[in-house]
Amino acid sequence: MKESEPRVVIVGAGFGGLSCAQALARAPVEITLIDRQNHHLFQPLLYQVATAGLSPADIAWPVRRMLRRQKNVEVLLGEVSGADVHARTVRLGEKALAYDFLVLATGATHAYFGKDEWEPYAPGLKQLDDATDIRQRILMAFERAEIATDPDEREALLTFVVVGAGPTGVELAGAIAELAKRALASDFRHIDPTQARIVLVEAGPRVLTAFPEKLSAYSERALERLGVEVRTGHPITSCSSHGVTLDKKEVPARTIIWAAGVAASRAAEWLGVESDRAGRVPVDAELRPTGLEDVFVVGDTALFIDESGAPLPGVAPVAKQQGVHVGRLIRAAVEGRGLPGPFRYRNWGNMATIGRRAAVIDWGTFRLRGRLAWWLWGFVHIYFLINLRSRLIVAIQWLWSYLMFDSGARLITGLERRNRGVE
Amino acid sequence: MKESEPRVVIVGAGFGGLSCAQALARAPVEITLIDRQNHHLFQPLLYQVATAGLSPADIAWPVRRMLRRQKNVEVLLGEVSGADVHARTVRLGEKALAYDFLVLATGATHAYFGKDEWEPYAPGLKQLDDATDIRQRILMAFERAEIATDPDEREALLTFVVVGAGPTGVELAGAIAELAKRALASDFRHIDPTQARIVLVEAGPRVLTAFPEKLSAYSERALERLGVEVRTGHPITSCSSHGVTLDKKEVPARTIIWAAGVAASRAAEWLGVESDRAGRVPVDAELRPTGLEDVFVVGDTALFIDESGAPLPGVAPVAKQQGVHVGRLIRAAVEGRGLPGPFRYRNWGNMATIGRRAAVIDWGTFRLRGRLAWWLWGFVHIYFLINLRSRLIVAIQWLWSYLMFDSGARLITGLERRNRGVE
Repeated sequence: MKESEPRVVIVGAGFGGLSCAQALARAPVEITLIDRQNHHLFQPLLYQVATAGLSPADIAWPVRRMLRRQKNVEVLLGEVSGADVHARTVRLGEKALAYDFLVLATGATHAYFGKDEWEPYAPGLKQLDDATDIRQRILMAFERAEIATDPDEREALLTFVVVGAGPTGVELAGAIAELAKRALASDFRHIDPTQARIVLVEAGPRVLTAFPEKLSAYSERALERLGVEVRTGHPITSCSSHGVTLDKKEVPARTIIWAAGVAASRAAEWLGVESDRAGRVPVDAELRPTGLEDVFVVGDTALFIDESGAPLPGVAPVAKQQGVHVGRLIRAAVEGRGLPGPFRYRNWGNMATIGRRAAVIDWGTFRLRGRLAWWLWGFVHIYFLINLRSRLIVAIQWLWSYLMFDSGARLITGLERRNRGVE
Repeated sequence: MKESEPRVVIVGAGFGGLSCAQALARAPVEITLIDRQNHHLFQPLLYQVATAGLSPADIAWPVRRMLRRQKNVEVLLGEVSGADVHARTVRLGEKALAYDFLVLATGATHAYFGKDEWEPYAPGLKQLDDATDIRQRILMAFERAEIATDPDEREALLTFVVVGAGPTGVELAGAIAELAKRALASDFRHIDPTQARIVLVEAGPRVLTAFPEKLSAYSERALERLGVEVRTGHPITSCSSHGVTLDKKEVPARTIIWAAGVAASRAAEWLGVESDRAGRVPVDAELRPTGLEDVFVVGDTALFIDESGAPLPGVAPVAKQQGVHVGRLIRAAVEGRGLPGPFRYRNWGNMATIGRRAAVIDWGTFRLRGRLAWWLWGFVHIYFLINLRSRLIVAIQWLWSYLMFDSGARLITGLERRNRGVE
């Protein structure tokens, strides 16, 4: 009996893959969920790990634990390296796993638009290790500035460039400004961290382009109040260990963070289908790539054109809703019931926060900015955390930071590994 | 005026160095506190980071932050490589820092008693990076066992050997047993984590030799109730990637943790004095090495013989009290006041915990074991954490683990770095 149940292989345990697995909880299928990491990550708060506000374990949970009661799923830690849509298998190490339905929820990674050589100088923020690496770079810059004797070097060490002013870039720049101007303010003896220069660079005409213009303008003012230099309308034209070039001028900086662009994972290549410029797999109303009946692509890896003709953005709610939809589709198919209609994205809107008192919310007809928006942003994010433990802990960390102007996770780790020259 | 204040250089921001700096808060001195890490670590709970119960930031705090209000101290992140007691300088990178008083609080590291080649297979637990490394090894062993096809390999992956049954070894073994038998119990599909074998090896005749015999015997029973195999009276005679040899028998094991011995840091070498076998610097009643008037050694690095003729143990309270004492000595000296008497250790006693319901407490006349001891152990440890934030967060993590049989920080990080073959 059990042997004959259809096999569903889901690659990726992010918002898309996890919600798909959960939507299949009561379906008569055997699910294999594969991820390179052992944890599901709440990416919207990852920038707070990078800026020493939260600990990795506050926003990440073991996938096994989350699904331990769901007996029709097995979780594998490993990296899928390809798929064979004719043989209906995915390649995991030396093994080939057979599937009846394949769900690719492999997400996206940072992209440098043909400038991959910039990556070592301007790391991006996608995984926990990226966040602890960036945290280390930021904190070490202050440590090095404290002992620097050359004033130019000190200035470059105290200059932080964030490239890209989408929500991640805006939130990162705001959080670095808070860190420098509040949490670190009186911790040093030879430098004044409040004099740190934080530059937010955006090639487009304004910050937070996905938001209405008024909220963008407000965000820009809020950033400037925090002391962030906002430089819109100019892409950076070079990036090295010395800094960046912006509008033909050199900006010496030892810490550069990339929040400018993402490219989809290599799913299109595995499937042998054409992708768009960002590497995304075009999918139909059922979230299937053209010509493949038993393969679904969801989340950041999928290119889904909505009714207005625009592609859906690469945000958590899209991935979650698509994952659930595919779960329902598969369940209906194996149970021989009528399929649900085509996928429709329910857009609850956008939010972004700027430092400790400002945020912008665009829930369609309901738009809000300022302090109340900031509180709402906090409640919504705590609500979406996975369990009570994380909610309590994140709430305490935030309350502590708010009241004490402190940040709770200012740890530099991995120093000895680094000093030994291992990396 | 300020230039002429005596310079105190403190090396190490553990319990000894930090308490010395704090004891000098109101003294007319200029203090430089140097550490290789940017954080002070609450080592007594480090084993809980290694066993996925707590996050690094729950038990570590930036040294700068802790001392930011104390204006007579500057904190440097760096590694001291030597001292020149004639020139009265310490070497920090390429610089020589002058001192009028030098306090060495450089702690200890794990020692393999001439078997340094065992280190890669049996890492010890002293710093945060050690703890996250051991956490990764433990969690990965279960992940690998889940996909192992060879039954012998699976068994070796599910065997955990802890070498040394002092407090750290006992607490580690108990915590690994809890993790396997409770938190992970229903998370896997192909292995049964409750069948994991945890072996606690001790060369001496009993566990927790620093405790009275009755409490040792109780601890051994409590460990066995948790499913830990306690093997006393036998040292391991080999250690490799295959496992250990114990009492002439091979114990195949993929995870081995070293909690058997420590050696003092290289302070004796820097000072050019004779050390004892464990590398400790013999100090007089004023915590000074023979013949050096302006150098003090405290904590795990010092060999202090108490009235009974026995050396003081390498535990946090000894280091703390010695640090405070040296602070008072230096203050009295620079203020030209009468010196405090010789150092006397106020022994508050020993505590150790075994899993989620048992602990032993030896406070001299007051001895306790069992559940009440476990609660007391918890309260005492929370009380000694540095700030309210950490206390709240650790309390919540423990309560959560206690009620939900869960562990909050089961993260495997650094995987990609590892996979790229960097380490």
